[in-house]
Amino acid sequence: MPNEIMPEGLWTGDYYNEGSGKDGVFDKLKEECGVFGVFGHHDAASLSYYGLHALQHRGEESAGICVADGVQFRYHRGMGLVKEVFGRELLESLQGDRSIGHVRYSTSGDSQITNAQPLVFKYRQGNLAIATNGNIVNEPALRRELEDSGSIFQTTSDTEVIAHLIARSPKNFVEAAKDALQRLVGGFAFLLMTGDKMIVASDPNGLRPLTMGRLGDAYVFASETCAMEVIGAEPVRDIAPGELLVLDADGLHEDRYTEAGRKALCAMEYIYFSRPDSDMNGSNLHSARKRMGSRMALESFVDADVVTGVPDSSISAAIGYAEQTGIPYELGLIKNKYTGRTFIQPSQELREQGVKMKLSAVRRVVEGKRVVMIDDSIVRGTTSRRIVNLLREAGATEVHVRITSPPFQNPCFYGIDTPDRRELIASSKSVDEICREINADSLSFLTPDGLISAIGGYDENSPKGGLCLACFDNEYPTQIDFGGEEKMGCSC
Amino acid sequence: MPNEIMPEGLWTGDYYNEGSGKDGVFDKLKEECGVFGVFGHHDAASLSYYGLHALQHRGEESAGICVADGVQFRYHRGMGLVKEVFGRELLESLQGDRSIGHVRYSTSGDSQITNAQPLVFKYRQGNLAIATNGNIVNEPALRRELEDSGSIFQTTSDTEVIAHLIARSPKNFVEAAKDALQRLVGGFAFLLMTGDKMIVASDPNGLRPLTMGRLGDAYVFASETCAMEVIGAEPVRDIAPGELLVLDADGLHEDRYTEAGRKALCAMEYIYFSRPDSDMNGSNLHSARKRMGSRMALESFVDADVVTGVPDSSISAAIGYAEQTGIPYELGLIKNKYTGRTFIQPSQELREQGVKMKLSAVRRVVEGKRVVMIDDSIVRGTTSRRIVNLLREAGATEVHVRITSPPFQNPCFYGIDTPDRRELIASSKSVDEICREINADSLSFLTPDGLISAIGGYDENSPKGGLCLACFDNEYPTQIDFGGEEKMGCSC
Amino acid sequence: MPNEIMPEGLWTGDYYNEGSGKDGVFDKLKEECGVFGVFGHHDAASLSYYGLHALQHRGEESAGICVADGVQFRYHRGMGLVKEVFGRELLESLQGDRSIGHVRYSTSGDSQITNAQPLVFKYRQGNLAIATNGNIVNEPALRRELEDSGSIFQTTSDTEVIAHLIARSPKNFVEAAKDALQRLVGGFAFLLMTGDKMIVASDPNGLRPLTMGRLGDAYVFASETCAMEVIGAEPVRDIAPGELLVLDADGLHEDRYTEAGRKALCAMEYIYFSRPDSDMNGSNLHSARKRMGSRMALESFVDADVVTGVPDSSISAAIGYAEQTGIPYELGLIKNKYTGRTFIQPSQELREQGVKMKLSAVRRVVEGKRVVMIDDSIVRGTTSRRIVNLLREAGATEVHVRITSPPFQNPCFYGIDTPDRRELIASSKSVDEICREINADSLSFLTPDGLISAIGGYDENSPKGGLCLACFDNEYPTQIDFGGEEKMGCSC
Amino acid sequence: MPNEIMPEGLWTGDYYNEGSGKDGVFDKLKEECGVFGVFGHHDAASLSYYGLHALQHRGEESAGICVADGVQFRYHRGMGLVKEVFGRELLESLQGDRSIGHVRYSTSGDSQITNAQPLVFKYRQGNLAIATNGNIVNEPALRRELEDSGSIFQTTSDTEVIAHLIARSPKNFVEAAKDALQRLVGGFAFLLMTGDKMIVASDPNGLRPLTMGRLGDAYVFASETCAMEVIGAEPVRDIAPGELLVLDADGLHEDRYTEAGRKALCAMEYIYFSRPDSDMNGSNLHSARKRMGSRMALESFVDADVVTGVPDSSISAAIGYAEQTGIPYELGLIKNKYTGRTFIQPSQELREQGVKMKLSAVRRVVEGKRVVMIDDSIVRGTTSRRIVNLLREAGATEVHVRITSPPFQNPCFYGIDTPDRRELIASSKSVDEICREINADSLSFLTPDGLISAIGGYDENSPKGGLCLACFDNEYPTQIDFGGEEKMGCSC
Repeated sequence: MPNEIMPEGLWTGDYYNEGSGKDGVFDKLKEECGVFGVFGHHDAASLSYYGLHALQHRGEESAGICVADGVQFRYHRGMGLVKEVFGRELLESLQGDRSIGHVRYSTSGDSQITNAQPLVFKYRQGNLAIATNGNIVNEPALRRELEDSGSIFQTTSDTEVIAHLIARSPKNFVEAAKDALQRLVGGFAFLLMTGDKMIVASDPNGLRPLTMGRLGDAYVFASETCAMEVIGAEPVRDIAPGELLVLDADGLHEDRYTEAGRKALCAMEYIYFSRPDSDMNGSNLHSARKRMGSRMALESFVDADVVTGVPDSSISAAIGYAEQTGIPYELGLIKNKYTGRTFIQPSQELREQGVKMKLSAVRRVVEGKRVVMIDDSIVRGTTSRRIVNLLREAGATEVHVRITSPPFQNPCFYGIDTPDRRELIASSKSVDEICREINADSLSFLTPDGLISAIGGYDENSPKGGLCLACFDNEYPTQIDFGGEEKMGCSC
Repeated sequence: MPNEIMPEGLWTGDYYNEGSGKDGVFDKLKEECGVFGVFGHHDAASLSYYGLHALQHRGEESAGICVADGVQFRYHRGMGLVKEVFGRELLESLQGDRSIGHVRYSTSGDSQITNAQPLVFKYRQGNLAIATNGNIVNEPALRRELEDSGSIFQTTSDTEVIAHLIARSPKNFVEAAKDALQRLVGGFAFLLMTGDKMIVASDPNGLRPLTMGRLGDAYVFASETCAMEVIGAEPVRDIAPGELLVLDADGLHEDRYTEAGRKALCAMEYIYFSRPDSDMNGSNLHSARKRMGSRMALESFVDADVVTGVPDSSISAAIGYAEQTGIPYELGLIKNKYTGRTFIQPSQELREQGVKMKLSAVRRVVEGKRVVMIDDSIVRGTTSRRIVNLLREAGATEVHVRITSPPFQNPCFYGIDTPDRRELIASSKSVDEICREINADSLSFLTPDGLISAIGGYDENSPKGGLCLACFDNEYPTQIDFGGEEKMGCSC
Repeated sequence: MPNEIMPEGLWTGDYYNEGSGKDGVFDKLKEECGVFGVFGHHDAASLSYYGLHALQHRGEESAGICVADGVQFRYHRGMGLVKEVFGRELLESLQGDRSIGHVRYSTSGDSQITNAQPLVFKYRQGNLAIATNGNIVNEPALRRELEDSGSIFQTTSDTEVIAHLIARSPKNFVEAAKDALQRLVGGFAFLLMTGDKMIVASDPNGLRPLTMGRLGDAYVFASETCAMEVIGAEPVRDIAPGELLVLDADGLHEDRYTEAGRKALCAMEYIYFSRPDSDMNGSNLHSARKRMGSRMALESFVDADVVTGVPDSSISAAIGYAEQTGIPYELGLIKNKYTGRTFIQPSQELREQGVKMKLSAVRRVVEGKRVVMIDDSIVRGTTSRRIVNLLREAGATEVHVRITSPPFQNPCFYGIDTPDRRELIASSKSVDEICREINADSLSFLTPDGLISAIGGYDENSPKGGLCLACFDNEYPTQIDFGGEEKMGCSC
Repeated sequence: MPNEIMPEGLWTGDYYNEGSGKDGVFDKLKEECGVFGVFGHHDAASLSYYGLHALQHRGEESAGICVADGVQFRYHRGMGLVKEVFGRELLESLQGDRSIGHVRYSTSGDSQITNAQPLVFKYRQGNLAIATNGNIVNEPALRRELEDSGSIFQTTSDTEVIAHLIARSPKNFVEAAKDALQRLVGGFAFLLMTGDKMIVASDPNGLRPLTMGRLGDAYVFASETCAMEVIGAEPVRDIAPGELLVLDADGLHEDRYTEAGRKALCAMEYIYFSRPDSDMNGSNLHSARKRMGSRMALESFVDADVVTGVPDSSISAAIGYAEQTGIPYELGLIKNKYTGRTFIQPSQELREQGVKMKLSAVRRVVEGKRVVMIDDSIVRGTTSRRIVNLLREAGATEVHVRITSPPFQNPCFYGIDTPDRRELIASSKSVDEICREINADSLSFLTPDGLISAIGGYDENSPKGGLCLACFDNEYPTQIDFGGEEKMGCSC
């Protein structure tokens, strides 16, 4: 039954410039991708199914699992949610004791089944499967260099570049992989699998999260600990910047492919992307977000009747703000679960008559009240304005917006899809101007120090608390200028 | 493409006794059904789609919409979620300016497309469509009486009984409907539609919620106000006990089919079933649940490190408990969204290894902590025991359970599917015994007075605050004994 | 996933007049329905699946199976082909040793899942399932009578009328069924099933085919013998006019519910509807159709270069014509299998550019040739004209049309959907006029005597060879005038 | 919704040896692939949809279309039939005035969406899409050579090898394509598309069919003329051995990439694979097959009562045999349309009880008769034995088998999936031995001269009538020995 209304592939002459960020369609940072790996469990595919399901928020566009049993690779990838892509019989056919899996959220307008990961290759030394999360800034230059020497590309994924680099090296697999990784500049988490080995690696700054756990004798790897929890695995530790783990018949080998740079884990993972029940650097994220809310209350208190959070990501921070101030936390905004490709969008006429998309304000809760509205970030400002107005239409007498992060002023080069700098409202407007633009009675952003302090964790003594704050302070932990050929966003 | 693994119909000789409540498979009250009606809007079907989607939590098994345009009826019903049952082209084909819709959660093990509502009939006076929520206690007796005089039944739904009663009356439609409604004993909300009229009615005690709103010139009816909010309709008032509204070309006619009994709205709607953003009797339910948590804190304080709620229904109450006590509210339990018919359940082996179904405890949050766990009710006790143990395995040093309702001791006859009385743990065990059974360090239930006080609303001066508390106090607002032929649960 | 673009139901105030025959959309007699029953085989559902699949040509709109095991009924019905409606798990869940099944081709524009058969009822005496093929001429009168005494109808199917008649009788099931059948006027084949009995019956003239076979100890019933062949059952005999078979724990009981009228099996079953590998009255239909072609060659020879048949129904006759005349049989016309609801129809522009729907002429075969084109019937004439023109455009120098049945002049009242009499070209035009209208060089119809002779069989000595030829000679075997309330076509 | 029960990919260390031919599962030559191209029509995608649908018999496993509009490529590929892979919205989104399309029948057990064609690549010079039918004998050697110099492979398709060869050439696209084609040994038909050009090419012996037509100003290319007929295009001519056509903004350029070898079109296309309404070398295939039957009657007459053909491919030949001998052609065998992945296979028990798979004999036609059974080929003999026995069980007194091709003794290297030589019954057994093995009363094969004579066409004066008869006479038109690395079957 035909179930897609988008063609599988769309390739233009200049596809690096297609980013969906330019069309004004969205005003929310796009979630990226998630990876999940198992080594040494006879039902690796099923564990991957549950693990990837727990990472579904990191990518709803495609899902894939590749398993190996020492003899052959079996894999399946498809467009859609994990539960849509895999059925029971299919999952049972994916026999093997190790696997790598992936969920993906396309950020380049190239919604292709061919880009669905893990990508699987055959080369001189045998089979090779790769799953990645992140972005390689110098990928265009590497791709051009490879094309110039005769390489062909079937995807727009960074992953295919890595495969080419490995295949062209005369060294053995592990050494070839190290060489290839050294050529990459960016933020990434990698899972690579061959017939007899698995490699797990993080970029030199540890920009993207990647964590290791144990389930009995098996090793488990995941973008977030919530995927450990659901399969009953015990979280062990995060993968370190520049680290490279090799798993084979002899077990786990800890190694590095490069010197570590400064630890710079993406702050937006704490603020917005990761699930509240995940831990990062030893902190539970719900608790960290509550601390952001508490800190915000100290930095910028306002007298009001109710505190409400923009669902779902700002609920925790709103509760923290309410706890700190004593102003009651109420459900002033409700997210309508208008989900999935099959949901029918209301007509223009119905939208004008008041049929709400995605968010409604609850009249009974906000009518005649002074409302503190907690949100995690402001990108273009259009969404914030819309929510403020929803609250006003429902009768709020005042709306005070509190953002639990500093002004978002710079694009991401490490895997988060952001619009052009000039579309980031905070890059050109003052806080007062933004406040007027979004029609709020008052507006405050959390300070960088407040954010670092709220996040906490064991890297408190690192510069910036071990965080990448480039989107707020323009200090990128890697080279980002490659003569105009650099790539932003995410194309994992 | 075959997409169902259950046969459409299964009829036994004695199907009234099949209730799923007996097999020990579930330990949670089953949600019931939801109804939604529109009168006087040219895109009645689309409004119904969004309205029913907002009521999806009341029934995920089947969905249906019947529209009328003065000339003919067009309808569609199917198994599954609203978004699965209706596609764009289908919805566009349902042209008409009035409609009744339904979502259903089967409670009798008879998962049949033939039972999906609205049911549509043709009889002497023309077309007739009916959608209901609730349960008719004396339905078996009425059905037997009808069969004895030659009636045939194609469903096991109460609705078909009503249709027979109406069709056999020699009176006009409105009078026939009044006569039919007078014969019913139970708790129910009805929407009936003919070629030129719509009837909206509530049982004599107002046991099931039903509310009216306006969208421009159109009238809208829904089980909960959240369905008003989403389409931009303005809530007007609840339908009163015994009230019968007639809508026709001349507009709205307010009428009654019987005297009102004592107002007795189902307390479980406040405690558990309805969405937190809905209002009932003028109270927002999130706020009411927070007050239940606050009241619980006053009635039964315990010193602890964190408060956590069993998702999703007890989050509001847990926040109230935390606000009242100053103990921080944390995400100690996470609900895994293992949803839908297509999700693959983990094998027994994986479950034993720790793959979690539905709920996980968050180790980082609860390890080494004294936890207050807020839940809405205890049915058999098995689920509570499982959750307490999850928290202990994740390292909680103490687990104090606080239930925001009185002990659940008596079955429901008005539309909520409950197990046999002997399976209700509170009907035979003391609070101390239950506490030991669920492995808690302490256990408290909210008092009936505490519950009534927390709910509040304009019926504060009615007996029991205008609530049905029969499941707690065994005082049923209607006759429930029909010589052994009475029907429990819900078969709308 | 929503997979239907038609609403389930559409009921008008005057739905008897909706027939699709009036809109000029089709110019082909619509196939009707097929029934299949099993009594005494432990895998009755699977046999029904294969049997109904073999009868798929009799109805592609819906399919259903109801099984019984002595304790309960299990059934499933759905829109679509047998293989689409039933999946493996579903079929395995339909446990039982007897079953009745149905495939349906709607002829009344009321494409409803509620009309899908078997219909299943509960009444005073227990469960009742019914599957039918045919049409009850006096159904409107019976329905009105039932409505007037308070009956409600959920379908537009004849079957529901039978159920009401049975349920209202105070007699036991077999006697009640006999009484009900006696009230029906029309052409029909019935399968009825209760908790412990099955009834098989044919109308008093045997208008619709129904045959019995054995598979080991089990009894099998089917509309055509091809459904016996596929499951390995041995055909035994056809059900006789007015016969009623009862099957129960004691085996088969042969009985009658009325006197037999004159045997009048539908001639169009021989000419067009039934599969060429089926037997009727002891004749293989491919052979019978070849004899129609041979007889046509004798009645109306024309010198030509090639003989071609309009696929699929006229291939056999074309081979017969070629054998008799020595003119080679060639593939001058090819049917494009543009099948199913999901196939995308060409745009108007593409059709005008030559993208062919359904039929193409093969240029290489017909270019420069004199062609004899064999077809089974002419209804409105528009299709014949189109095919003749296709052959001319592909280069045929002459096109001689030979129709292997007499001119079709009268509507059917016994289960075949025909347009109004005034739209039947042969009812108002002479053969010469039709010949000009369809742009043929010559045109001949088979004579009634030629048809009877070609069909042959054991009823050669009956009036009209035991056939109903009413559509050709206006001599209906039953009363057809019920004061304007009579129903034509098929609504089984 | 998960709808596949096979994993997408399965890669072993030695996947060239996996051929499905070894497992004894099938005893019928597998159909291969089909290609379809359009240049210069604004609705290229829709034409491809209808054209590929007409070629569906050449491959039912996957389908794909890639369109170009001068700026970008848009493509979609999926597992399943053309009508399943493409829906309306999807097709409408494939905007462009040129396209190449493909249907595929996997022959290597590697049922992968990644192998679905057209494959689409990006390389130094821009976008490149390729669709092929056939087999490259020296593909393993070329692949190894490419891997040794660092190439990676994502598919097991020949097509990816071509793309690598083109990408590694420093020449312009057309010259690079010529160089690449010259390195290939085998039988193939190619469609290549870049941003501004399309290339159409056939192997040096013209082993696989490929034909050109016009539709207005547009050019159309297809594996068979039946795909022209359905879209109203006029067939122009076949592509010649070694020919290479280039289409660009200036129109059609006729060119060659190599000298033509001897013309050697696959005889099995005439005998079995192609549709009877297609033309090859100027002959209609139904007519050619009738001539094979006629010739067979002359070479090997036997007195009998009925002639029957094994459906569908041998119906034409059976009619020819009947016409020549005067023995009537009857429907003694019926093919059950048990089609598609969703059809439920009968259990072992039901098969033993007589539920027929695929073929049934019609008792009424063959009982007591001497039957001539016409078939196109015998591969292993198991199927023939089964069909002969079906006829005997249905009462045939004698069964005389006539095969309209010579004994099949040698594997194909040019795109037809054949079992190992030792499993070809004719490679080790005499005609008499085969006759006993298949339980026939007599058996004859058509002589090679008889076959050549029956096929006819304009290559009558070429060696072997311009046909490849290697499977019958072991005289392969190309080198087939590549030191054990040669590849058989089809992996397009």
